[in-house]
Amino acid sequence: MNDFMEMVVTPDDPSLATPFATEMLRQMRAVDSYGTWDNAGDHEILDPFVMTKERKREVPVIGDPDELVLARVKAWYNALSASIEAETGLMAVPMVNLTHEGFGRAIIAVGRLIVVDRNLRDVHRFGFKSLDAMCEEATKIVAKAVALIEEHRDVAKL
Amino acid sequence: MNDFMEMVVTPDDPSLATPFATEMLRQMRAVDSYGTWDNAGDHEILDPFVMTKERKREVPVIGDPDELVLARVKAWYNALSASIEAETGLMAVPMVNLTHEGFGRAIIAVGRLIVVDRNLRDVHRFGFKSLDAMCEEATKIVAKAVALIEEHRDVAKL
Repeated sequence: MNDFMEMVVTPDDPSLATPFATEMLRQMRAVDSYGTWDNAGDHEILDPFVMTKERKREVPVIGDPDELVLARVKAWYNALSASIEAETGLMAVPMVNLTHEGFGRAIIAVGRLIVVDRNLRDVHRFGFKSLDAMCEEATKIVAKAVALIEEHRDVAKL
Repeated sequence: MNDFMEMVVTPDDPSLATPFATEMLRQMRAVDSYGTWDNAGDHEILDPFVMTKERKREVPVIGDPDELVLARVKAWYNALSASIEAETGLMAVPMVNLTHEGFGRAIIAVGRLIVVDRNLRDVHRFGFKSLDAMCEEATKIVAKAVALIEEHRDVAKL
């Protein structure tokens, strides 16, 4: 579940209780078809999303993303989409396009409106400084998306 | 270059001279890095885009798309994007997402506006009744996209 020797997220991390972390956990557990995480704590499941400076040093600068990191990238965009949907009541659909080398583009579409648009690079190093930083980033992205939807509701409803 | 025994597009097919067919040829020749089509006629390069009833019978109902058909699907969306760009002066970017089984989604984005949105299925059977039908379909899709851009120019310019 984790490529790193030591965990950085502790079971009492307050960010684990935020609505966004809860959604991330739901997304991660949803793709766990073999039940390998059934006995894992929430902090263990979200721990690999944290990419501290120390961890970054352990990851090669150039590398191909493996299936585990791809699953995390998808969980991230799925959780963002679910949060946008929850706030607006409109269906949000993510689309992640990656080359084998970890470059690509991710969008989230609401109707005919692209509410999130990111160029992806170095996906094998995907992660956030802390769980708190992850939730903060999500809050910003969702707020921008919701504002865009409000401004162009006609396109979002197409 | 072609999976079929007999060509259906003849060198004197009038559709070969349309602006869209010219764009398709440009796209196909652009991905031919090894120059295998240097001596191929235009009609030979576009021939595999034609999926007649007879040809459809030769293709299994269920199958995985190979690299050649994926290249054709991408050429199709690239050529549509180039045509939309030529008519509007705004950059149009295609994004094609396919599973190994040939299901997925293709979009063309202009700014934050999704001007083409298609669910893809049975991509291993991708093709058109004739070259004429292909150009006609392209004309329709491009016209719809241009109309959408005119209606939501603010979003297309985001």
